[in-house]
Amino acid sequence: MPELRKDPVIGRWVIISTERGKRPSDFEGLGKKRTEGFCPFCPGNEDQTPPEIMAVRPSTTLPNTSGWSLRVFPNKFPALRIEGNLNREGIGIFDKMNGIGAHEVIVETPDHNLDMADLETSQIRDVLIAYRNRALDLKKDPRFRYVLIFKNQGVLAGASLEHSHSQLIATPIVPKRVMEEIEGAKRYYDYKERCIWCDIIAQERKDQVRLVSENDEFLAIEPFAPRFPFETWIIPQAHQSTFEEIEDSSVESLAGILKEVLAKVCQGLNYPPYNFVIHTAPLIDHHEEEYHWHIEFMPRLTRVAGFEWGTGFYINPTPPEEAAAFLRGVEI
Amino acid sequence: MPELRKDPVIGRWVIISTERGKRPSDFEGLGKKRTEGFCPFCPGNEDQTPPEIMAVRPSTTLPNTSGWSLRVFPNKFPALRIEGNLNREGIGIFDKMNGIGAHEVIVETPDHNLDMADLETSQIRDVLIAYRNRALDLKKDPRFRYVLIFKNQGVLAGASLEHSHSQLIATPIVPKRVMEEIEGAKRYYDYKERCIWCDIIAQERKDQVRLVSENDEFLAIEPFAPRFPFETWIIPQAHQSTFEEIEDSSVESLAGILKEVLAKVCQGLNYPPYNFVIHTAPLIDHHEEEYHWHIEFMPRLTRVAGFEWGTGFYINPTPPEEAAAFLRGVEI
Repeated sequence: MPELRKDPVIGRWVIISTERGKRPSDFEGLGKKRTEGFCPFCPGNEDQTPPEIMAVRPSTTLPNTSGWSLRVFPNKFPALRIEGNLNREGIGIFDKMNGIGAHEVIVETPDHNLDMADLETSQIRDVLIAYRNRALDLKKDPRFRYVLIFKNQGVLAGASLEHSHSQLIATPIVPKRVMEEIEGAKRYYDYKERCIWCDIIAQERKDQVRLVSENDEFLAIEPFAPRFPFETWIIPQAHQSTFEEIEDSSVESLAGILKEVLAKVCQGLNYPPYNFVIHTAPLIDHHEEEYHWHIEFMPRLTRVAGFEWGTGFYINPTPPEEAAAFLRGVEI
Repeated sequence: MPELRKDPVIGRWVIISTERGKRPSDFEGLGKKRTEGFCPFCPGNEDQTPPEIMAVRPSTTLPNTSGWSLRVFPNKFPALRIEGNLNREGIGIFDKMNGIGAHEVIVETPDHNLDMADLETSQIRDVLIAYRNRALDLKKDPRFRYVLIFKNQGVLAGASLEHSHSQLIATPIVPKRVMEEIEGAKRYYDYKERCIWCDIIAQERKDQVRLVSENDEFLAIEPFAPRFPFETWIIPQAHQSTFEEIEDSSVESLAGILKEVLAKVCQGLNYPPYNFVIHTAPLIDHHEEEYHWHIEFMPRLTRVAGFEWGTGFYINPTPPEEAAAFLRGVEI
């Protein structure tokens, strides 16, 4: 019997479709595909990107030369532009503003052939520190309300270049999905006087069935009502509303569990395309009591049809309990 | 300068990204791809599908034999099952119910090689009448709250079989996206005492820039804040909250404008994969004053990245005004 399950935060229902059941072995990972040819993110091609904003590099090397192990620069084809004013205005009943924002690229490794899952934990820690430091810097700009940090891995997940990289977009509005989470979390908090994610953590640790991994500071779970097969959330065990206020010591733990999740999914499912997004509180109003930052990781193993976009109603052929059991069993 | 635009109904912002601007000629349609091989939807293979629920066929032919021009049957691999009770229950803080519902397939033509865009208007009228009649029938089942009618055309749009068909899913809950529309429309109605779609129609007819086509009863527009290039909405000009109460005479007009939109997009953009969804009021509460049914048509010309799924924030490289001008110019 298929099941309908409700996401406890935003109220989205999903169909866990056992009739269309897919076991982990049904997913053919698309594998690592490495093409030859010119890559603007490779060492030696620093002049092909806008000048770097920051880098992890020996002090003996100059900016925008090779030798770096991590590099951050503005996106050459930004979705939003950094210069200008918002000029909010109405056009009849419609509302618009200038597309002001920042759009940066974080190149995670100089090695074109490595996926993020293959990086050392220390290198993933450096990536997370770069995310945090860029977010803290952009937070100073009063035009911005949100900093979105995300990664597209693989062409099917929307990556236009295959060299492993993440992106950061600072926006003058809070994204709808985050607002929905805040509203759902507030409703729960008003009723229970507890954070909903803290309650989810407690239940998942007790039930164990959707747990993928845990360390001293973080939990990795398959959520109760996942949109996608092997959708995985990484949640800090201690209540904290903003990612960018993370301590150095916690970054270490986060790098460990993120590496573990990436490696398990990539080794267990043959390097599928994937996306992840960091959901953190808005820059101005932190919703400190109700909001709890987390990472949503989504392998791209099924095709999403217009049905999903038209309705916000997802059909997922893999129960999260099976996905969690599979991932727990992947040796890395 | 890129622009941020807000959908007036549900409040979703999109980035109209001129920096990444794509002109219609930049989209390589994936073309019609016709494979040889067995198709369970073709005439002569009626025994390969569940028994038909209805069909348009000469009275001299028997059910589940060839001779039909349109055929409706239950999905062989249904996302939801028709038999049983909902058994709503809680699991700790989580909520679930049995996956009860109906999942039907509407095969629109016996000809394997025709796309919906190639059908005669009279054939599209028959398809729309089948949608309506199936919705009216399923409405009688008190377990259902919503009937979703949608079409996936092409593998990239989620179609698993290429023979042109639509689908219908009756669900025991109202989809989130429809609830968001209802909430947005109610907010507008409470403030203005007018239907928001009626106001959109008035403004689009006045502005003309996003208008694709209009006939005596319907309008086809590129919405002000489209998620996708060439996203097109078809809206009845007269206020009506439910699709399934459409009169026969209006079905004629709707078939005409739907044929026109499909043909313009398919001829202008070389038969891209696409989805469409009919947004109508819930079965029980019609929200008659505030809600206005419509069709959302979405060609799949860009890859949606996890960024969009993680944030509900879309990046669209094609301004709707350009898309509308292009479609107006396509001769069919």
